[in-house]
Amino acid sequence: MTNLQRPVRITDVAALAGVSPGTVSKALNNTGSLKESTRQRIKAAAEQLGFVPDPDARWLAARRSYTVGLLSVDAAGRFSIPVMLGAENALAAGEMSALMATTRYDPVREAYHLKTFRARRVDGIIVTGRTTDPRPPIRTDIPVVYAFAPSTDTSDASVVPDDADGMAKIIDHLLDRGRRRIAHIGGRPHKHASEVRADTAVSVLKERGLTLAAPPLFGEWSEEWGRRAVDQLLAGLGARTTGPDRRTDQDDLGVDAITCGSDQIARGVTDRLRELGIGVPERIAVTGFDNWEVMALASRPPLTTIDLLLEDLGRRAAELLLDAIGGRPHHGIELTPMELVPRAST
Amino acid sequence: MTNLQRPVRITDVAALAGVSPGTVSKALNNTGSLKESTRQRIKAAAEQLGFVPDPDARWLAARRSYTVGLLSVDAAGRFSIPVMLGAENALAAGEMSALMATTRYDPVREAYHLKTFRARRVDGIIVTGRTTDPRPPIRTDIPVVYAFAPSTDTSDASVVPDDADGMAKIIDHLLDRGRRRIAHIGGRPHKHASEVRADTAVSVLKERGLTLAAPPLFGEWSEEWGRRAVDQLLAGLGARTTGPDRRTDQDDLGVDAITCGSDQIARGVTDRLRELGIGVPERIAVTGFDNWEVMALASRPPLTTIDLLLEDLGRRAAELLLDAIGGRPHHGIELTPMELVPRAST
Repeated sequence: MTNLQRPVRITDVAALAGVSPGTVSKALNNTGSLKESTRQRIKAAAEQLGFVPDPDARWLAARRSYTVGLLSVDAAGRFSIPVMLGAENALAAGEMSALMATTRYDPVREAYHLKTFRARRVDGIIVTGRTTDPRPPIRTDIPVVYAFAPSTDTSDASVVPDDADGMAKIIDHLLDRGRRRIAHIGGRPHKHASEVRADTAVSVLKERGLTLAAPPLFGEWSEEWGRRAVDQLLAGLGARTTGPDRRTDQDDLGVDAITCGSDQIARGVTDRLRELGIGVPERIAVTGFDNWEVMALASRPPLTTIDLLLEDLGRRAAELLLDAIGGRPHHGIELTPMELVPRAST
Repeated sequence: MTNLQRPVRITDVAALAGVSPGTVSKALNNTGSLKESTRQRIKAAAEQLGFVPDPDARWLAARRSYTVGLLSVDAAGRFSIPVMLGAENALAAGEMSALMATTRYDPVREAYHLKTFRARRVDGIIVTGRTTDPRPPIRTDIPVVYAFAPSTDTSDASVVPDDADGMAKIIDHLLDRGRRRIAHIGGRPHKHASEVRADTAVSVLKERGLTLAAPPLFGEWSEEWGRRAVDQLLAGLGARTTGPDRRTDQDDLGVDAITCGSDQIARGVTDRLRELGIGVPERIAVTGFDNWEVMALASRPPLTTIDLLLEDLGRRAAELLLDAIGGRPHHGIELTPMELVPRAST
């Protein structure tokens, strides 16, 4: 049907299938919401033409390597991995390959990887971090997008999860459930995520004419802190917590919900409340944050929590980077929404 | 001192610093055990010559891309990530870059990534898996090493953690601690890791003239299964487990140690034993498997467990691949050792 003397291009596949090159890319990567018949037609066209994305040929034409560097300070991290995965997926859908490089908090290693990225002529770089605390920018003329940990330079493009959005969804959910005396057990003090989550609990309640049942507590991102914080909170509220369930049932605990800064903390909170014979959610509803499933599902009861949608965040970072590579750079911090995941703890 | 008209090569840096090119690579990557003064001298030499690894130049010379494809079916996986990180680190030390590609169990996606790897002329491919169950080989003439999940084709090179080594270390440790009545709570039945771990417990005890205190139990890789299995085990042994600690202290439980197929299971076991008032490790020692720190450290008490040393496994896979790229392919399954991590649960 078609007999080409030059390498087959994505535009040839698009022409044969009667769709746009972007649709071809989606079909071949099994992304996007295409009709199955369209997807099959495009795959048949690619197969028929023997289409193989050829980055070298494209690079010669476009002076682009169709490669993006993914630089992670902490690839073992629970947060950076889904961000990198989301970015890798979005890049693959755009026929870009991802070079993976981890720095392990070592500036020398970071400098080495940046040199390598340059030597390999990457079209752009995505930098992920371990926390949402801002990090110093990378000095380079290659387009860069910061994902999860924003750049301290506000003229850079950064994509950061919207902790305030997540906590507002938690508070709205608890108020919907009829809870009015809400306490907050936060993570490590002075961390960006800790502060935004606690501050948002206060401000959303204030909009409804309410206040926290007790001043927010801060400690660690750990189960052990969650367990200790329960005792601290209840002591501060003057609740008697010794004795079996029957007895505490008659006490006024002064609190009917506890929002936690993380799923780990919330799991410690539910464990301690169970030990004290205080029913969750009957007497106190408990919420986590992160939707770290191994914690949230193993908790008794399973935790209502907030999913940070980190793969979506990674995908968004890739989109901003592709824009920048295409000559349309973004600036400033873009916040990505979170999702409430209701479970038995509320 | 040196004025080169051609691109600076690693051999130029080596000559100026008076070391081998391999030592230059180690120094610039901060790997290996070099004297700090040597490292500094090499870095100064690289800086002075303006050395930047140039993969394109090298590729033209050597017909190599100095790029390796890391193909993961499950990059979000707790097991595949450390393997990929170990491989990436070893490759960076060898001045190879890692192209990251995740297939998410989708054969079409796998085929797409393999096409891309070919188009980018990767020198080799490392394939990681989600479990240690064997997987079908990849059909390609590019060198491939399978890491964690071996190839079903025994002429392929695979690197797999030595579960038998790990469980033997656990049993030896418990026998050293004077435990003689050991029971085993395994993970999902018919999985390779499950079977090897249980079979090894039996065979190592047999070598010492001992048997398991009860037939091994199999269920799920979950805390919930660990909690349930405790009741099943103790009921099977005829132990009375109701009542506070004082009473069970006088019962003969018929078991003084429980080896578990994973840290998650072991955590469920310690939780249930605590609820039953049975002291860990005083009355029953408990061991995990995996050294998944969030589980092993949050357990009360923290778990004695086995570290799979997955980064070392990834590094070893990279070494085998570099050998194959250099014309010295390996064949068959290589088992990598594990490490006992003793903590308070024994």
